[in-house]
Amino acid sequence: MLEELKEQVFRANLQLVEYGLVVLTWGNVSAIDREKGLVVIKPSGVPYSAMTADDMVVMDLQGNKVDGKLNPSSDTPTHLELYRKFDNIGGVVHTHSSWACAWAQAGVDIPAYGTTHADFAFGGIPCTRGLTEDEVNTEYELNTGRVIVEEFAKRGISPDEIPAVLIHRHGPFTWGKDPFKAVENALILEEVAKMAHRTEAVASLSENSNIGIEQYLLGKHYLRKHGKNAYYGQ
Amino acid sequence: MLEELKEQVFRANLQLVEYGLVVLTWGNVSAIDREKGLVVIKPSGVPYSAMTADDMVVMDLQGNKVDGKLNPSSDTPTHLELYRKFDNIGGVVHTHSSWACAWAQAGVDIPAYGTTHADFAFGGIPCTRGLTEDEVNTEYELNTGRVIVEEFAKRGISPDEIPAVLIHRHGPFTWGKDPFKAVENALILEEVAKMAHRTEAVASLSENSNIGIEQYLLGKHYLRKHGKNAYYGQ
Amino acid sequence: MLEELKEQVFRANLQLVEYGLVVLTWGNVSAIDREKGLVVIKPSGVPYSAMTADDMVVMDLQGNKVDGKLNPSSDTPTHLELYRKFDNIGGVVHTHSSWACAWAQAGVDIPAYGTTHADFAFGGIPCTRGLTEDEVNTEYELNTGRVIVEEFAKRGISPDEIPAVLIHRHGPFTWGKDPFKAVENALILEEVAKMAHRTEAVASLSENSNIGIEQYLLGKHYLRKHGKNAYYGQ
Amino acid sequence: MLEELKEQVFRANLQLVEYGLVVLTWGNVSAIDREKGLVVIKPSGVPYSAMTADDMVVMDLQGNKVDGKLNPSSDTPTHLELYRKFDNIGGVVHTHSSWACAWAQAGVDIPAYGTTHADFAFGGIPCTRGLTEDEVNTEYELNTGRVIVEEFAKRGISPDEIPAVLIHRHGPFTWGKDPFKAVENALILEEVAKMAHRTEAVASLSENSNIGIEQYLLGKHYLRKHGKNAYYGQ
Repeated sequence: MLEELKEQVFRANLQLVEYGLVVLTWGNVSAIDREKGLVVIKPSGVPYSAMTADDMVVMDLQGNKVDGKLNPSSDTPTHLELYRKFDNIGGVVHTHSSWACAWAQAGVDIPAYGTTHADFAFGGIPCTRGLTEDEVNTEYELNTGRVIVEEFAKRGISPDEIPAVLIHRHGPFTWGKDPFKAVENALILEEVAKMAHRTEAVASLSENSNIGIEQYLLGKHYLRKHGKNAYYGQ
Repeated sequence: MLEELKEQVFRANLQLVEYGLVVLTWGNVSAIDREKGLVVIKPSGVPYSAMTADDMVVMDLQGNKVDGKLNPSSDTPTHLELYRKFDNIGGVVHTHSSWACAWAQAGVDIPAYGTTHADFAFGGIPCTRGLTEDEVNTEYELNTGRVIVEEFAKRGISPDEIPAVLIHRHGPFTWGKDPFKAVENALILEEVAKMAHRTEAVASLSENSNIGIEQYLLGKHYLRKHGKNAYYGQ
Repeated sequence: MLEELKEQVFRANLQLVEYGLVVLTWGNVSAIDREKGLVVIKPSGVPYSAMTADDMVVMDLQGNKVDGKLNPSSDTPTHLELYRKFDNIGGVVHTHSSWACAWAQAGVDIPAYGTTHADFAFGGIPCTRGLTEDEVNTEYELNTGRVIVEEFAKRGISPDEIPAVLIHRHGPFTWGKDPFKAVENALILEEVAKMAHRTEAVASLSENSNIGIEQYLLGKHYLRKHGKNAYYGQ
Repeated sequence: MLEELKEQVFRANLQLVEYGLVVLTWGNVSAIDREKGLVVIKPSGVPYSAMTADDMVVMDLQGNKVDGKLNPSSDTPTHLELYRKFDNIGGVVHTHSSWACAWAQAGVDIPAYGTTHADFAFGGIPCTRGLTEDEVNTEYELNTGRVIVEEFAKRGISPDEIPAVLIHRHGPFTWGKDPFKAVENALILEEVAKMAHRTEAVASLSENSNIGIEQYLLGKHYLRKHGKNAYYGQ
């Protein structure tokens, strides 16, 4: 069942390797069929080199396995929570890409420092609060999804405008309208995370520097690409 | 029309990928036929892997499309302004390469720290002033070209001697006598931007360091390669 | 003799090159056959490109060559000391990978800053004390093994839970149940070393940052992957 | 003439590209036939992709071209000065590799921080004084060679024990018994330059750190590999 979506999720998982976003098996991609309410996700612990489209696992939104010989990624409860609460997303990606993890481990948001960021997200990339000891000990992966949703609600920001988040002490999740767009956003997030640190490093060694994109420039770049009247293409 | 120039611009765009200067579609190359007054530029939003020479778009210097099925890059008005005001340039490149963007986002010039820089440019690489809210809201891409031209005029520097600029909060533009030289300059700029930050980082951790190339050494290197009596070749 | 283990050690040595962990010949992998009490190790000074499985050298645990035309790696006495004292390990790796060496040269432990680290090791990666002048001048390579064993004993940590160490002013050793797992741990250590420095660098430029993984999160991640009731797989 | 040496110099120049040590044509390798007193060097300004062994240029030690259709690299007078004054070297390399240039541009020596460095050089890598305006304006390339020789004499260090130097504001020269060893030393220098900065960066963010290799450990590593009784091989 869902053979075409399995094929897409399989190929999107391989893109993580092509883009240099994963070491070993440190990443996973899923996608949802909104009509059927079913999610296709990478199996658990299978090396990318041995994986086939047929290994993908089908889950319902309540976390029951519907199809597949293997176990789903142990991060599945996080993915499902995002699909349940973020209505417009069609694909979800988790990686341990190095620069995004550095910001997550430092426990701080990635500020919007320039137009590369503004082409991607309508504001800084939030870092969630840390999970409590209780949240870690019980339903850890589900609670990881919950703190993402909580963070967006608390800040009043929309997952449609900010397609990425940093989990405190952990790493990034990104999403998009389909699994390929979610992978693309994982790639852009890593690039933006790297560029943001380099911006701070350059600025810290220069007397005349000030950093932080102006709100009107952030809006211009975000909206010329993603707004109703978008006209942008490089 | 302009089939040969289209082929050149197409190949120069692919070089951006080969040199690792672009992520996804984040870059564009153009070239001008000065006799005909026509500019060939990359189309908007086409993946590099799917692009052909025939997809290149031909514009006149007033911004009218003269030939091509696709829309030109949305950065076209910036390119055209550079061709109108910088008489000797034959090719223009825009990228979001990471190190050059870091300096642009920090809003500071790249100082000339050594002979690698001096072989490339006869002085520091200027960062423009930020665009005002009005300049961003109306004719943004054209105004981006205008602030480049303004910056060179204000500083009394020549685009023939400084083949690159940083747009404040945005990223680099480079140019050259043809599209391949403009791409080569984009590559060198990124290398020089990286090396300049590393120089500052090394110096900041060392007690005996001082940085900044001596004017006579800058002149020697620039002129032995680019001056009337140039004799340099590694 | 031990043809299959020679083949494994040969292939594991080549993985060091594939993973970008070695420059020139700066690394070596060994493995032990615990039943026979024999260790297979890379020969000394042979380029990776010219090496064959048959070049691997067989040593007993007392340091006598049992089989092989070439000399064993000059780091052999360190490997043998680890096999003698760390009962559960089946493979050992030494590299001069850049980030792990930077921490070793700085003489400090790599702190556990996030879940990437916690998936790998149940605590920080220890840096040994420096060897004394006497220890360097006599039985240097053996003494290198001895200070590793001493460091684990002194701190009361187990090589089963911390699969890596930094030698002061030198570089990393890692181990695992077999040579491939030891190489995988060398790759992860380098990634974790890089990420830890980037975490400190990001945090040092941010006002709101604090770093260091919470003990309960460290335990959760380590144990869901390596504990008795492990269920983890990405 | 000197066909075999031309072939070696040609292949050694290509290794600079394979090892990622050069951008565009920013590097050159030469070698000397000590019996004939003739030096083979890369021609000036030829792209690596178009170069053949037959393009190599033969010079005598006084700087006269003896064989070859093309002009020799404009750095030739520096190479020749090194061959005249450093009796035991058989190959010389110049690059603009990024990390070595960063130290050269910062104008400071690369300190010996660990055993990777000690396996390579018996002490820190010296940075020369800057050339005076007169030295730059007259016989610049020859004077570059002279300040290298002067620096080694002034410090009382031997080119046999320190196979590399940093030219102030410029970049590295390395040498060895033949052109391949000189290229290998250029690769190691870049690795050591990178690792040294990372060591300082890690140490600068850590309270318990101290850096600088102990003299007895430096001696042990250098001499077990390069001394009379050398026994080292990884």
